[in-house]
Amino acid sequence: MNFPILYLRKGAERRLRAGHLWVYSNEVDTRRTPLTEFQPGDQAELRASNDKPLGTVFVNPHALICGRLISRNPSQGMTPQRLTERMELALAVRERLFDKPFYRWVFGDSDGLSGLVVDRFGDTVVVQISTAGMELMKEAIVRAVQRLVHANAIILKNDGKMRKVEGLETYVEQAHGPEADLLQVEENGVRFEVPLAGGQKTGWFYDHRMNRQRLQAYAPGKRVLDVFSYVGGWGLQAACAGATHVTCVDASATAIDAVHHNAKINGLDNIETIEGDAFEALKALADEKEKYDIVVLDPPALIPRRRDQKAGEQAYARLNQLGLRLLERDGLLVSASCSMHLSQEKLIDIIRSSGRKIDRFVQLLEQGHQAPDHPVIPGIPETDYIKSCFVRSLTGFM
Amino acid sequence: MNFPILYLRKGAERRLRAGHLWVYSNEVDTRRTPLTEFQPGDQAELRASNDKPLGTVFVNPHALICGRLISRNPSQGMTPQRLTERMELALAVRERLFDKPFYRWVFGDSDGLSGLVVDRFGDTVVVQISTAGMELMKEAIVRAVQRLVHANAIILKNDGKMRKVEGLETYVEQAHGPEADLLQVEENGVRFEVPLAGGQKTGWFYDHRMNRQRLQAYAPGKRVLDVFSYVGGWGLQAACAGATHVTCVDASATAIDAVHHNAKINGLDNIETIEGDAFEALKALADEKEKYDIVVLDPPALIPRRRDQKAGEQAYARLNQLGLRLLERDGLLVSASCSMHLSQEKLIDIIRSSGRKIDRFVQLLEQGHQAPDHPVIPGIPETDYIKSCFVRSLTGFM
Repeated sequence: MNFPILYLRKGAERRLRAGHLWVYSNEVDTRRTPLTEFQPGDQAELRASNDKPLGTVFVNPHALICGRLISRNPSQGMTPQRLTERMELALAVRERLFDKPFYRWVFGDSDGLSGLVVDRFGDTVVVQISTAGMELMKEAIVRAVQRLVHANAIILKNDGKMRKVEGLETYVEQAHGPEADLLQVEENGVRFEVPLAGGQKTGWFYDHRMNRQRLQAYAPGKRVLDVFSYVGGWGLQAACAGATHVTCVDASATAIDAVHHNAKINGLDNIETIEGDAFEALKALADEKEKYDIVVLDPPALIPRRRDQKAGEQAYARLNQLGLRLLERDGLLVSASCSMHLSQEKLIDIIRSSGRKIDRFVQLLEQGHQAPDHPVIPGIPETDYIKSCFVRSLTGFM
Repeated sequence: MNFPILYLRKGAERRLRAGHLWVYSNEVDTRRTPLTEFQPGDQAELRASNDKPLGTVFVNPHALICGRLISRNPSQGMTPQRLTERMELALAVRERLFDKPFYRWVFGDSDGLSGLVVDRFGDTVVVQISTAGMELMKEAIVRAVQRLVHANAIILKNDGKMRKVEGLETYVEQAHGPEADLLQVEENGVRFEVPLAGGQKTGWFYDHRMNRQRLQAYAPGKRVLDVFSYVGGWGLQAACAGATHVTCVDASATAIDAVHHNAKINGLDNIETIEGDAFEALKALADEKEKYDIVVLDPPALIPRRRDQKAGEQAYARLNQLGLRLLERDGLLVSASCSMHLSQEKLIDIIRSSGRKIDRFVQLLEQGHQAPDHPVIPGIPETDYIKSCFVRSLTGFM
């Protein structure tokens, strides 16, 4: 293949050489190779300023991330065949690790497919495309899904925020099979039905699956508070594992409805819900002197952008303190974060200071991360975002 | 209780207030309260320079760590009753999490019992005391073990290096029940027999138990190389989970003998061993163009002290590169570390650079930590030492 060439400025190849896969627009030598000469989704050969080939990229001249590495081999572009091979390699590790076809099959850059996310929900496959380059591969993606797993239904849920940045329209399209309103999910042996329209992201977050599995070891006989419950992922799995009573808190009425629906399909009659702001709800429960054996905190990213760092960390601290206050004398706090701007180390430090502030002896029993269907690429910090801390809190211990 | 007072220098209480439990000798106001007036193992009330009580401590005037916090309540010293209560609280969480009585029951500072480690091996309990304060509680410890778990045998394996620092003799003593040469261990459903005399630490390292359990998910049908195998913890568990062939590498003849013995008692006939230096063995295997589906690297702490940081990190890098080279085109590297001076972040960075150096696409599938029978105290970095990375390595992928 002969690709047009895209030159980087001097030294701008360093991050790529260290393992990252992105090129920022200010790293391109636009005098030598103007970005304006590329169409969104074009493939190009990427070169360092000294002419050394760095590989091939998808180009989007309108995006801040204007290049996404396809291969480190300058003769290998993205083709339907290469796409299928990479999807097959991604599938292989999921099939090895999970008994049933419920998982994130493709996790973008982490599977060498920048801009593509594919989730499996049994016979239904939900695809999310977020870059112009991948949008051009749409037909090939659908064909690869059909060829590799013979899906009954394929949905293109192309309504993510990222698409605007790439100059793409947002839409949801049934690419194959019958339409449905609900997604059937099974995680750690528990069934869920999730509304597809209006659901968050692809409809389900598999990323905490291993952490929710660990929660099951602690749940038998316990009273559990699941804060930011969404459709009940943590709380209902705890209940199925033997928790005596579970209270789910979420601000969304749709999510709360789904909690009740999912409690019913799992035959659970010990699930209570609170619809409302989590911080307000936690304060109200504390005022009522409510106590729980286990409190799960799984908030949305409280540090959405770098500039929110300080305020976000303070919000995590308030939240963790509120959670600790609601625990029995020997209780478990499950403190999770999906914010890539909050490091595991910082989260642990927030738990430390929260514990000291209200005089709890806190033991960090387990540290969890994203599940193996969300691989982290060591050179791409953006791929490492999920963390969870299982913290035993003892009152009057020391 | 009335304890003698130990004063800190101005500001020296900061680390304790942040959650740590140790006092260093240079933090004591020795003009006001000379350490020479204390006997090793004395209990004292600890005060800040402004007279604010900080709690109670075990004192050892001869040790660099001359104070170990017992309680943040200045009237609560260590008594047989308090010791028993804390051992009971420690036991409660282990009994909840583990089906069978094989675990670290007490993990020193992390369980509020600085200087005491207790491991359970079924009916046998192995106790390690490393401080003068705990040595004085010896009888109470043995009584608490008997009262709480009715052990058949209690062994005091007081031969750790730390004891010299505390001015304690080293000895091994059968405190209760019949003597035995072998410890019976069961971990993740696999049986081991470990020589008690000459064995490392208490004889078995439960700290990687969750990581070895995760290995079992990857092992079926695979060829595994277990480097620094000791008695075969990783390798034999992989074999029992369905690995087709396992090669264990260790420098100790005793450990290699134990690998063979343990293979036999688990009915395994697919275990091979290499006795020798791990680095040399890996180089020889690479020269012979051997390849494995899974390579496990679980070295002893390669950064034993801060001053070994640079050389140690280089050793980890060499080791991880050697490990990656021995993998098939789609292989798994399990890279572990028990060095508290190597952060998870640094280990991941070493894996990143090793992968780049030899052009592998590395996906970090799982990040493991020490098991919940080794709790981490967020204010005591010394308690957080185990990490493991499950890394998929792809050749020619990108």
